[in-house]
This record gives sequence, C-alpha cells and structure tokens, in this order.
Amino acid sequence: MIEEKPCILVIHGPNLNLLGKREPNIYGNLTLDEINANIRGKANNLGFAVEFVQSNHEGYIVDAIQQAEGNQKGIIINAAAFTHYSIAIRDALAAISVPAIEVHLSNIYKREEFRHHSVISSVVYGQISGFGYDSYLLALEAVARLIGNKR
Amino acid sequence: MIEEKPCILVIHGPNLNLLGKREPNIYGNLTLDEINANIRGKANNLGFAVEFVQSNHEGYIVDAIQQAEGNQKGIIINAAAFTHYSIAIRDALAAISVPAIEVHLSNIYKREEFRHHSVISSVVYGQISGFGYDSYLLALEAVARLIGNKR
Amino acid sequence: MIEEKPCILVIHGPNLNLLGKREPNIYGNLTLDEINANIRGKANNLGFAVEFVQSNHEGYIVDAIQQAEGNQKGIIINAAAFTHYSIAIRDALAAISVPAIEVHLSNIYKREEFRHHSVISSVVYGQISGFGYDSYLLALEAVARLIGNKR
Amino acid sequence: MIEEKPCILVIHGPNLNLLGKREPNIYGNLTLDEINANIRGKANNLGFAVEFVQSNHEGYIVDAIQQAEGNQKGIIINAAAFTHYSIAIRDALAAISVPAIEVHLSNIYKREEFRHHSVISSVVYGQISGFGYDSYLLALEAVARLIGNKR
Amino acid sequence: MIEEKPCILVIHGPNLNLLGKREPNIYGNLTLDEINANIRGKANNLGFAVEFVQSNHEGYIVDAIQQAEGNQKGIIINAAAFTHYSIAIRDALAAISVPAIEVHLSNIYKREEFRHHSVISSVVYGQISGFGYDSYLLALEAVARLIGNKR
Amino acid sequence: MIEEKPCILVIHGPNLNLLGKREPNIYGNLTLDEINANIRGKANNLGFAVEFVQSNHEGYIVDAIQQAEGNQKGIIINAAAFTHYSIAIRDALAAISVPAIEVHLSNIYKREEFRHHSVISSVVYGQISGFGYDSYLLALEAVARLIGNKR
Amino acid sequence: MIEEKPCILVIHGPNLNLLGKREPNIYGNLTLDEINANIRGKANNLGFAVEFVQSNHEGYIVDAIQQAEGNQKGIIINAAAFTHYSIAIRDALAAISVPAIEVHLSNIYKREEFRHHSVISSVVYGQISGFGYDSYLLALEAVARLIGNKR
Amino acid sequence: MIEEKPCILVIHGPNLNLLGKREPNIYGNLTLDEINANIRGKANNLGFAVEFVQSNHEGYIVDAIQQAEGNQKGIIINAAAFTHYSIAIRDALAAISVPAIEVHLSNIYKREEFRHHSVISSVVYGQISGFGYDSYLLALEAVARLIGNKR
Amino acid sequence: MIEEKPCILVIHGPNLNLLGKREPNIYGNLTLDEINANIRGKANNLGFAVEFVQSNHEGYIVDAIQQAEGNQKGIIINAAAFTHYSIAIRDALAAISVPAIEVHLSNIYKREEFRHHSVISSVVYGQISGFGYDSYLLALEAVARLIGNKR
Amino acid sequence: MIEEKPCILVIHGPNLNLLGKREPNIYGNLTLDEINANIRGKANNLGFAVEFVQSNHEGYIVDAIQQAEGNQKGIIINAAAFTHYSIAIRDALAAISVPAIEVHLSNIYKREEFRHHSVISSVVYGQISGFGYDSYLLALEAVARLIGNKR
Amino acid sequence: MIEEKPCILVIHGPNLNLLGKREPNIYGNLTLDEINANIRGKANNLGFAVEFVQSNHEGYIVDAIQQAEGNQKGIIINAAAFTHYSIAIRDALAAISVPAIEVHLSNIYKREEFRHHSVISSVVYGQISGFGYDSYLLALEAVARLIGNKR
Amino acid sequence: MIEEKPCILVIHGPNLNLLGKREPNIYGNLTLDEINANIRGKANNLGFAVEFVQSNHEGYIVDAIQQAEGNQKGIIINAAAFTHYSIAIRDALAAISVPAIEVHLSNIYKREEFRHHSVISSVVYGQISGFGYDSYLLALEAVARLIGNKR
Repeated sequence: MIEEKPCILVIHGPNLNLLGKREPNIYGNLTLDEINANIRGKANNLGFAVEFVQSNHEGYIVDAIQQAEGNQKGIIINAAAFTHYSIAIRDALAAISVPAIEVHLSNIYKREEFRHHSVISSVVYGQISGFGYDSYLLALEAVARLIGNKR
Repeated sequence: MIEEKPCILVIHGPNLNLLGKREPNIYGNLTLDEINANIRGKANNLGFAVEFVQSNHEGYIVDAIQQAEGNQKGIIINAAAFTHYSIAIRDALAAISVPAIEVHLSNIYKREEFRHHSVISSVVYGQISGFGYDSYLLALEAVARLIGNKR
Repeated sequence: MIEEKPCILVIHGPNLNLLGKREPNIYGNLTLDEINANIRGKANNLGFAVEFVQSNHEGYIVDAIQQAEGNQKGIIINAAAFTHYSIAIRDALAAISVPAIEVHLSNIYKREEFRHHSVISSVVYGQISGFGYDSYLLALEAVARLIGNKR
Repeated sequence: MIEEKPCILVIHGPNLNLLGKREPNIYGNLTLDEINANIRGKANNLGFAVEFVQSNHEGYIVDAIQQAEGNQKGIIINAAAFTHYSIAIRDALAAISVPAIEVHLSNIYKREEFRHHSVISSVVYGQISGFGYDSYLLALEAVARLIGNKR
Repeated sequence: MIEEKPCILVIHGPNLNLLGKREPNIYGNLTLDEINANIRGKANNLGFAVEFVQSNHEGYIVDAIQQAEGNQKGIIINAAAFTHYSIAIRDALAAISVPAIEVHLSNIYKREEFRHHSVISSVVYGQISGFGYDSYLLALEAVARLIGNKR
Repeated sequence: MIEEKPCILVIHGPNLNLLGKREPNIYGNLTLDEINANIRGKANNLGFAVEFVQSNHEGYIVDAIQQAEGNQKGIIINAAAFTHYSIAIRDALAAISVPAIEVHLSNIYKREEFRHHSVISSVVYGQISGFGYDSYLLALEAVARLIGNKR
Repeated sequence: MIEEKPCILVIHGPNLNLLGKREPNIYGNLTLDEINANIRGKANNLGFAVEFVQSNHEGYIVDAIQQAEGNQKGIIINAAAFTHYSIAIRDALAAISVPAIEVHLSNIYKREEFRHHSVISSVVYGQISGFGYDSYLLALEAVARLIGNKR
Repeated sequence: MIEEKPCILVIHGPNLNLLGKREPNIYGNLTLDEINANIRGKANNLGFAVEFVQSNHEGYIVDAIQQAEGNQKGIIINAAAFTHYSIAIRDALAAISVPAIEVHLSNIYKREEFRHHSVISSVVYGQISGFGYDSYLLALEAVARLIGNKR
Repeated sequence: MIEEKPCILVIHGPNLNLLGKREPNIYGNLTLDEINANIRGKANNLGFAVEFVQSNHEGYIVDAIQQAEGNQKGIIINAAAFTHYSIAIRDALAAISVPAIEVHLSNIYKREEFRHHSVISSVVYGQISGFGYDSYLLALEAVARLIGNKR
Repeated sequence: MIEEKPCILVIHGPNLNLLGKREPNIYGNLTLDEINANIRGKANNLGFAVEFVQSNHEGYIVDAIQQAEGNQKGIIINAAAFTHYSIAIRDALAAISVPAIEVHLSNIYKREEFRHHSVISSVVYGQISGFGYDSYLLALEAVARLIGNKR
Repeated sequence: MIEEKPCILVIHGPNLNLLGKREPNIYGNLTLDEINANIRGKANNLGFAVEFVQSNHEGYIVDAIQQAEGNQKGIIINAAAFTHYSIAIRDALAAISVPAIEVHLSNIYKREEFRHHSVISSVVYGQISGFGYDSYLLALEAVARLIGNKR
Repeated sequence: MIEEKPCILVIHGPNLNLLGKREPNIYGNLTLDEINANIRGKANNLGFAVEFVQSNHEGYIVDAIQQAEGNQKGIIINAAAFTHYSIAIRDALAAISVPAIEVHLSNIYKREEFRHHSVISSVVYGQISGFGYDSYLLALEAVARLIGNKR
C-alpha cells in the first residue's frame, strides 16, 4: 500500500506569471516555471507533494483556497497585488483550517508606501519576505516544521 | 393566463458558500442551501419568486447586478468582503433602477475596524445587519413593502 | 388568569417629535403620532405591547433605557442626533440585558459625513435603516424572531 | 388695534449664567442680566420684542428652538460649549424655518483647537464672533436687516 | 460655637447608578450606595463632610458644579461617559475656583479607543484611575493634602 | 480748524471685482461699486471716512495693510480666496496695531470644505459672515463700537 | 507585401458596457458600441488598427494588458471603478513596455471624493479626463504623437 | 468683411519661462518660445487665434483669466506651482463662463506627493497631463471639439 | 524570627534627578532626595520597605523592572520622558506579575500635546497624576489597598 | 591550516531574556538559553559559528551591530520593542555592509496596532515572523543561501 | 584689470520691511536697513558683494531668484510667510544652479504649528534659524565655505 | 593668574562614530576624529575650549547634558537618530540653562519623511543643518555671538 505524501498548495497572485520578464531588478531573472521547479525540488526533499496555482483572477484564488480544506496540509501564498486589498482572499484564508504562510519575493518595506500594508497578514501563520524565490523555499521549511514533516 | 410572480435577486458574496462551516460563532450553523431554503419559503409567502447567485468572483456579481435590470424587481445583496472595497459593485448598483437592500449576517460594527465601512451603503435603498439569516428575511419584508407586494 | 403580552420599548430621539413637518423629503410626511399608531398596529399583530418614549433630553433617554431592564423584552431605538455622540446612551444600552435594535428612517450613508458614524452600533443587536417608518416595523419583526414571539 | 412687535429669541448656552464671574479676561465683566438689559434696549430701538433662554441643559435648548416656530421671527444663539458637539441643537435649527444667527462673545479662533469647529455653523444664516456682548447687538442689527425691520 | 467641616462634592456621571449590576468584571460588585458609604466613612476620617450627586443628565451635573462655588471645598468627579464629550462640564469646571479631581473606576487606557480621551483632563487638578472604588478614596486623600485638611 | 473724520480701510480680496456677475446665488446681485456706495453711506452715518482697496494681488493687499498703520483706525477685510492660504496677509494683520474685522458675504461653512478654514481668523478682532453685503455694514457698526465712534 | 497597421488596445473597465443607459448626465448618451465606432474611425484616420476589450472582471483586464506586450503599440485604458483600487491592473501596466494612457469620460475631480485618487496614474504615460468620449479620441492623438505615427 | 478667428488664451504659470533650461529630464528641451510656436502652428491649423500669458505673479494670472470673459473662447492653463495652492486662480476660473482645460507637461502623479493635488481640477472642463508640450496641442484639439471649431 | 516588610520599588525616569532645580513652576521645589525621604516616611507608616531607582538609561530601568519579579510587591513608576515612547519599558511591565502604578508629578494633560499619550498606561494597574510628589504618596496608599497591606 | 567558519551574529532585543516565563501563549515555553542552543545546533549544521547578544539597552545593541562589520557575515535580529522606535538601531543596520534579517517570534500583525510598524524593515534584507523560535532557524537558512554557505 | 567680487543675493520675504517695529520680542529691535548694513559689513569682510531684495509680492521674489542665475554666486533667503506655502518660490530655487540657504530670524519650531513646515527646505542647500539677524551672517559664512571664498 | 577659556560641549549622537565610513555621499569622507580636529581648531580661534562626547547610548547623552550645567557655556548637539524620538534628551536640554544649538550634517529635509521631525527643535536656541561638518563650525560662530565671545 502506498502512503501519499502530504500536499502543499503554492499560490502565485496576479502578474507573477510574468516573473523573469518584469522588473528583474526587483523580482529576479527566473521565470515562474523555473521557480516552481525549484520549489518542487525542495518539496521533494522535504517529503511533500506540491500543487501550483497562478491566477490574475481574485475569485479563482479564493476558490483555490477554499478547496485546500481537506486536500492540502499547508498553503504558501504570494498574493502579489491582492496582498494589499483583497479582503475576499483574507476571508477565505480565515475560513479554512489549513495553515497559510505569506511570502513575498521582494522586501515590501523598501517599496512604495501602499505596499507596506497587507490585509492578509493577520490571518496567516507567519510571513517571509525579501529573499527572492528563496522566500518560497524557506516557507516550505517552515511548513515542514509546522506540520511535523521535518526530518 | 398566468400572471408571473415578481422576482427578487438574492446575491451572496465571496466565501458565503462556506456558511455553516466557517466561524459558526459569527455566522451561525446553517449552510447556504439551508438559508436559501428559508429565503425561498419566506419569498413564497410574500408572493415572490427568488433567484440566487453566489460567487467569489467580483465580475460575476457585477454581471448579475446588471442583468437584474428589467428582470428582477429587487435585489438583496450580502456583498461580504466585497462590501468594503468593490467600487465596481457599487457602480453597478448605482447604474440600474432596481432597488437594492444591503444585508449582513453579523453586526459588522462589532467586528474588525475595516469592516465598519461599506462602499455600497450610499447607493442602496437601506441596510439590515446583525440578525443572522433573518437579515435576509427582513430584507424580503422590506422589499415587499417597497414595491407594494406586501399583503 | 390573563397572560401579559411582552412589551417592547420604542425610543424616539431628539427632534423626531417634529416628524411630518421637518424636511419631509428626508423623513416622510407622517407625524410621530401616526407612525406610532402604525407601530402599535404591527405590535398587536405580533402579540406585543409597546411603550413609546420621545425626548430631546439625553438624560431622559438614558433613564428610560435603564428602566427597561426587567420591564421590557426589547428596545427599538432611533437615537437621531444622539446616535453620533451620546456615549451615555451607548453605555446605558451596554449595561442592560434587554436586546436593542438601532433604526433610522433615512439611509444615513446618503447624508452628511458626520451621520455615517454611530456610537451605539457596536452595542446593539442589529441595525435597520433607510426604510422610512418601515424601519420600525421591520425592527418589530426582528424582535419577534429574536425573542421567539414570531408566529 | 395694537400691532405686536416681532419677537426675537435669544438663547444663551451652558455656563453663560456665570458671565461676569467666569474668566473675565475672556468673557468681560458684565453679568448675563446686564447683557440682557443691553440686548433688550437695542431690541426696543429696532422695534423688536425679545425673549431670553439660558440653560445648561441641551434638551431644554432644543425644546426652545422648536417652539420658536410660529412664535419668533429670528433666533440669536450663543450655544457656548454645545456649539462644538450638539448635533441635536443643529438638527433643531435645521428643522425650523426661523432664521438663526450664531454668536460668540470671544473670537473662538484665538482659543483652544477644539473650539474652532462649530457643528451648527452650516445650518445658521450667519456668524458673528469676537465682539464681546456687542456680538449680540450686531446680531440684532443683522436680524433687523434680514427680516426687513430695519429702519 | 460649632465649626463646620469642609464639604466635598462627589459627582457620579451617567449610568453609575447601575454600579454593582453592570459589567461587574469592569466595575466591581459594589452598588453605588455601598461605594458612597465607603466614601463617607473615609471622608469622616479625614474631617470632611461629603455631598453626592448622580445624574444621567449633563445639565444637572453642570448645575451642580456651578453651585459648588462657595459651598464646597473640593470636587471629586467621575464623569463616566460625559468624560469623553461634555465640553459643557469642562467649561463648568474651568469656570469655578473649586479644585476638582477626575477619577475613574477602571483603567480607561485598557478599554475602547474612544475612552482614552478625556475632555476634562486639562481643567482638573489631577487624575486617579484604575483602582475601583479606591479611586474615590485616594481622591479624598488627595483633596485633604491639597486643601491642608490632612492630619 | 477742521477735525478729520477717522478713516476705515475696506479691503476686498481677489475676484471680488466681479461681484454682481459671478455666481449671484452665492454672492448677490450688487456690483462692487454699488456695495462700496452702501458702505460709504453707512460710514458717513457713523462719522467715518472710508478708503477702498480691491486687488487680485496678494502683495498689494499686504502693502495696503502695512500702510494702514498710523493712517486708518480700523480695517474691514474680505480676503476672499486669500482667506484660506495667505499667511503673508495674516502676518501683515498681526504686525500692525490697527484692529481688523474679517467679513464674508456668504456663510463659508455652507460651502466647500476647504473654505471652512481661515488662516487670518486668529489674528483679527472678530468675524462676521453670511449676511451678504450687510456683513460689511455690520462690521462698520462693530468698528464704531470698538473705537468709541458709536453715537 | 502588406505592411500591417500598428494596433492600439482600448480597454473599457467595469460597467462601461452600460454606457448610454447609465446616468447620461455624467456619461453622455452614446452607447459603448457607438463610442467604439467613433474610436475606430479616428484610429483609421491616424493609421491605427484598434482592438477593444470591455470587462467587469479585473482578472480579464489584467490578462489583456499582459497580452498587449508584443502585440499592440499602445494602450488606452478607462479602468472605471478599478481605477481606484486595482493594484493588480497597476502592476500589469507597470510590467509591460507598451505605453498606456489613462482616460476618463467625466472630470473625476468634480465627483465623489473616493474617485479623486487613481492607483494607476503613476504607471501610465499620461492622463486625459473630462471630455466625454473625446477623451478616447484625444488619447489616440496622443498615442500617435508618442509612437511617431502622427502624420 | 473679415470674420475673426475665435481666440484661445494659453496661460503658463510660474517658472515656465525657464522651460528648456530647467530640469530637462522632467520638462523637455524646448524653450517656452519654441513651445508657443508649436501651439500657434497647431492653433492656425484648427482655425484659432491664440494669445499667450506667462507670469510668475498669481495676481497677474487672475487678472488675465477675468479678462478672458467675452474676449476668448477657451482657456488652456498650465498653472505650474499655482496648481497646488492658488484658490484665487480657482475662483477666477469658476467665476467666468469661458471653458478652461488644465494641462501639465509632466505626469504629476509620478512626482512629489504635494504635486498630486490640484486645487483647480474641480473647476476646469478636463485635464490633460504627461505628454510634454503635446499636452497643450491635445488641449487645443479638445477645445476645438468643445466649441465646435473642429473640422 | 523577624518578618520582613513587603518592599515597593519606586522608579524615577530620566531627568528626575534634577527635581527641585528644573522648572519648579511645573515640578515643585523639592529635590529628589527630599521627595524620596517623604516617600520613605509614608512607606514606613504603611508597613512597607521601599527601594529607589533613578536612571536616565532606559535599559537600566528595564533591568530594574525585570528584577522586581519575586523581590518586590509593587512598582510605582514615574517614567518621565520614557512614558511617551519606551515600548521596552512597557513590555517589561507587561512581562512581570508585580502590579505597577503610573504616576506623574504634573497634570500631563495641561502640557504639550506629545505628553498626552502614554505607552505604558494600558499595562499598569492604574494612574495617578497631577498632585506633585503627593502622586507618589497616593500611589503608596493605592498599593497598600491593592496588596492588602492597608491597616 | 584551519579555515574558520563564517560567524553569524544573533541579536535578541529587550525583555527577550524573559522568554519562557513571559506570556508563553505568545512567545512559547522555551527559555532564551534553550532557544540559543537550538540556534547553535542549526548553525553548526549549516557550517556557521554563531555569537549571541541580548540586551535591554539600545546603545549596547547599536554597538554590537557596528562591531559586526568585518567580524560577522550576517546578522539575525529580533529587536523586540526596539523594532518600533529605535531609529538608532536602524541607522546602525544601514551603516554597515553586513546583511541583516529581521525576525519575530510571533506574528506581529495579530497583535497591538503599534506593533505593526517596524522602523528597521526597510534597511534589512528580509523579514521572517510568526514561527516561534523557528523564525531564527529559518533566518539561518536564509543567511546560508544569501552568503553561499548553503550545502 | 579689476577682478569683481562674487555677489550674494539676500532675499527678505513679506513683512520683513517692518522689522524693528513688529513684535520685537520675536524679531528683535533692528530695522531691516540696520540689518542689511550688518550683512553688508560681514560680506565685505568675506570678500563678497551683496544685493538685497525685499518684497511682499511672491512673483517679484520668483523673478529675483530666476535672475540670480549667472549673476550671483549664492542666495540667502528668509522667505518669511512664503516659507510655508509658496511652491512657486520652491520651484524657482530648484530650477537654478545657484546654491541657496534658508534662514529664519526666530526658531520657527517654538512658534505656531503651521510655521514648522517649510516647502523650500528640501530644495535649499541648508538651513540656519533662530539666531536673530546673526542667522544671515552665519549664512554668509556658510556661503563662503561653500563656494571657496572663505579666507 | 590664568583666566580659563569658556568651554563648549559638542555632542555627537549614535552612529556618528562611523563617520567617514558610512554612506559618504550623505555624510562626507571625514572621520569623526578629523571633524573634531576641525572643530577644535575653530574653537581655538574663537577663544573656546571644547569637550567632545560621542555615544550610542541615549542615557549617556542625557547625563552629559545635565553635567553641562555650570561646566560649559554652550552645547552643540547633533543628536543623529535620537533627534527624532528621544524626549529624554529634549527634557534634559530644557532642564538646563546652558544654550544649545542643534546641528545636522545633511539637510534632513532632503531625506526620509521620518527625519523631517525633530523632538528637540523647540527647546534649542537655533538650528543649523545641511553644511556637512561646517554645520558644527557655524554653530561655534553662533555660540560665540550668543555668549559675547565673538571678537
């Protein structure tokens, strides 16, 4: 009998599909596919399966979060622009029992004033920001410790 | 010849599909289907047909509001998270001639500061909040009085 | 033996004694007596006795609220101008165990900025506003459901 | 047949009964009775009867304003402390058709920050402030011009 | 010849007549009468007569403060809700020469944001808050030291 | 030997040269010349000479205020738009010993928010606003009382 | 060989599909189709092809903006309600190299306070607002000058 | 008989006489004379006469705006620094019936915070900003459409 | 066997070592040593030992607060300037179980705006301010009542 | 020849010496020594030496940061209370070339409003918060990736 | 051949022509001519020529600043009231390459709140304030050091 | 007999010990020792002795300020980061009679928003900022003039 690996949902918010093309001085040179490959690699090492969602549609992300209940063990979310105004995403994260971790590629406190405020910060477990795509990998580590999957 | 009953559009905003599961201390134990059944019952008593929309997608709700023009006699809207930032929904409500009533399950003034402000309040006919799913039923009563359907 | 009907206290705040004379485009054409008659009628239908208080004196309203404890089953309060600054009324409502419902004739969010904030909202059970004198009738319905008097 | 002189209602707000005793450097040395005598003298010259109300009770002033309707031709009001928070007085002034003039003994813009804002300014006809008890006399002049009683 | 004891006026603001019934976790279990008895006892020890006023009416409290001039040697005031908006009470306290001490049963800085601001703080001699009914007793001590009645 | 009449300087700020043409619903139908004639008539009655300045140039008004020192006995100033930002005019008024009265044709508190604040209010003797051109005439009365020229 | 005309993407935000029906005093009487026909005509004159997108869905507009990269030479965007909160649209506009021009039918500074702030203004090339559908035509002119297509 | 061409008044605010010398990265390399020549050329094409005013003196610009009444058919105004505080210019624009268009060379929303607010925006017909000197040419186009001079 | 007296820690914040020299109109004429002597006398009467700390070093005060745990029965703290910004002192007070009382010599609400806010108020038991060095003595009384040492 | 391991400086701000005793529901049950042991273990695994500083003295922490230049390869700083006001620590972090990572044990966005703002966020490389003492371990991982020490 | 001395432009803003007469407790007893003589003396010592401008007209000062380009080596400006709102003067200072120093006679931070903000501070080289007319002399020293004219 | 030279205390706040190494584009290339040598040279010329204090510890600077009383004739203080929050330093400066001058190397108004506000500005004699280390030398000049030591 095969035991399934616990699955982590990784959510990339709007415009992150442009990674590697858009303002590389802020976001780095890797494309989203390359970053996802790195995430998958790290997940494998930690014994996780991983599922990816990228959308420019707020509603689609809300749907994905809701469906994580019972299906995934953790959520890593870079809500990008939605970080700053999507109370719908906030409410979705608050409504489920799956722990979520907020990540950002860049240090949002070095950027425009309006990016300093996150509407989801108070409903996630923790935040990791500023480490480029390493932010995702560190979040995987954090999830591993959180749900006891850490070797 | 059969006279059609006037129809009321009931809109449930994002995450309300989770009702009955999510934070029951705030939102109660009934599921959305059970609430809708209650609404339908009350509507029948008042001589109304009723149509339901639930969506986590702002655009979908905007579309639904626009299509109410000429098709429904009143709108009862619990915009949930969208209450606080969706100017698109506000503009849709302002653009049509169908009267709308804003409802909330919980007393939003007992909750987080950011839930105290509604961007749609100034374009609806009235507000009813804090009565659990009774908020919807009272709104039906209000519509009945408003459009002369009250026995 | 005669069973007494449960009694509801209806409080009308300052200047509401002028109803029917003052800015009818905002408040409608009915006088306070006429509105009270309507309220009494609806209360009868719901099996309630009803008691009315109107005062331009904040202290008088505070006294009335305090005396509701043990004497009335519910309070329907249109605090009018006091809505926006009377923390004394707020504290009185918070100090008693009788549930109160805040009503407004007009949609206060369509009016001056300073009328958008209510100091009593967070201590009442729910709010109903914008439906003219129907706001009171809907509040009676709400009380009926709340205290199980609803047939 | 005797033609009655048009009557002006002069309202003195809270603590103005202490005039002549309280902080004379701000409010001058005359008592309220002496000021009223001056006002009555000026009113006589202008062909007005005059009625005085002083109260530390907001509700009493609201009542007085309401009763001016049909009984007085103009109101001169120094709302004192109530100037800065009594929306009930504001609503009373807005509800009647008798024109009111806001007066202040001192220049309120030379005093504490919280005295710079008046909640009644936008519902009165005009303001006169800073001239000691002459503010009342100038207001009488203004009323005379306003209602055509000026010789 | 009998020398009269100096008299202290103790003012209890709105809703304090409910003490012992209202939110005992905040205000304690003693009724106002029981607290007054304690105050009287302490006053006796310090050689003071004491007079009590409780009112839900702002104007009544303003009147009482004005009448303290020449009749009482000190005022101990717990303005309760009026603390936060009654500029009329502030002006009355500022207009008399009797020193006043502001007291609060609870530590108002542990409560709602709107209770952190007092409009009377800058016109009283000092503040004592957070010690339950001991706040009054400490204020009596303070008055004793202030007016040289301290043994 | 002829005794000269005391002279009053009347300053009209920017765009007041358009009076009678510009938004008559706000400012009335009289031209500035007609208003000045009324002011001169009233001044004659009170035993004053009067001098007029109208300018759209802030610096010109500052110069005029400075030159009033030693030449005029009082200043009546309707600073119009400059009311709201010209600290230079404020400083000029503060720098001289001639008392100034601030007047406005309209009740500025019924107009746009930015017109509610005057930077000169705290350096003038008093304010009169809302009485149309009567505001100037009342100001003349006020000056007469102020400098003892009142018969 | 046929040289293709440079193509301009014209984006109409939420509720603009109602043009001609909704509040004509603000938005004019032309329908969106009629306006688009005018835009196409002007574009032809200037040697441009033009593509239209209208959506009530923020995500759809983000997608469209992203796809303009490499396909269109300029973007003309009337983001309507999204103007005021869609940071996702802002980020999309900032992420591509195609220059965009922000247009509004009405002068947004004459409307509600919340419409005075645009979250996209600082990432577009320029703004044109207040000229009804001429705003689009002027924007076409602007694009022509910008990308050297101006005859 | 010669028919005169309709005349447009073009107003350049303070420091714009330095154009071509001052911060060319923001304002471009053309001098004001060169820009005016371009404007005149475009005006000729559209059948307009054009008159230019440049001043560092607010009062001079107010005078010019007033004199446009009856003499010019439209105003194009780049108020430069005055944009942000000259209520006198605002009032002048509001007082005349000639339509005005606000232009800016640079996109003011990409610059310092204090340049994001214009006190004249709500009294002009529309705004065009960010297109360098093309902003003026587009404004001429806009005027042509506005007053029916467009071929 | 000797029973030790319960010990109270009295903390004097920065610059209080200058008492008696610095602005005596605000702080009185007694030196810190003289005040401490008074405190010690009162403490003796109440059956307390007392320990004093004065420091201009925030860290030193944090250390002292931490060491009170298990060693003192109560803390009386006049944090002086640190009152307004030292979150470190706030956190220290919150971290220990020893009850603390905040005292101030002067009525801080009569002083500069920035002195009206205390960052420690919400973590102490109560506040006493405005009574000169009596504030400390009253605080000793309060501690005595609080910990049952009051005879 | 022995190659030295790169050293990481770990800074614990004020009151963190109380860890394990203070509010364990917020900060967990481990003492600072136990946490440091965990950090040292993880550092060993990553090939780092580690040095610890804990201080309640802001100046001591500033000194430690300055001395990291040339001595340590990275800084992990939990500035605790200093996070919110110590611009001196901010300037020290900005003045050196050693990269720093800001960590917090708790999710500061779930706590008091004043803890939501960090004055050091914009001068550190990244932030990790909310994971209890795992925040430090994740920061070590982050440093390892940052300075190429990651196996 | 005679080498010309470098010239410094000294600008005195509005109402400074009243120096010596106006509020000497704030501005000192010297007249502007006497101060200018002092400045000239100091300038001579430092090898500078000096030119003076005083104006109550903002536009005149803008003109003077513009003309400094190529004619003067430095500007010393006491913009007086204009300091707080003249963005036109700010833009002029920013547009030229001549370094400017902002001076104030009084310490503006000890005066009214609105004098604490300077709109020109961020475009000048440095500020010197609070030293009476010595502020100008110190500014001359500063210019000498800045442009290498210091002996 | 030897007459001692008056002594000036020069205080350098936190991180200024890094001068010459830290962000030379802002602070220049000289080390603190080199700057101090310059200051000493200038002081010698002016007949002053000079004493230097540099500390990263707020308490140490408070101590130094207190000890200046009776020992130094003037204080020159660059409080660096403490400028913006150390009310303890402010109180120390206010408590002594030695005049202090606030200096800054850089023009703080060209830097981050939070550096625009100084808590010590209103208690020092004057400010000099923006001239690099010349700010100190100019402050010495200012002290010399202030205390009559200027030759």
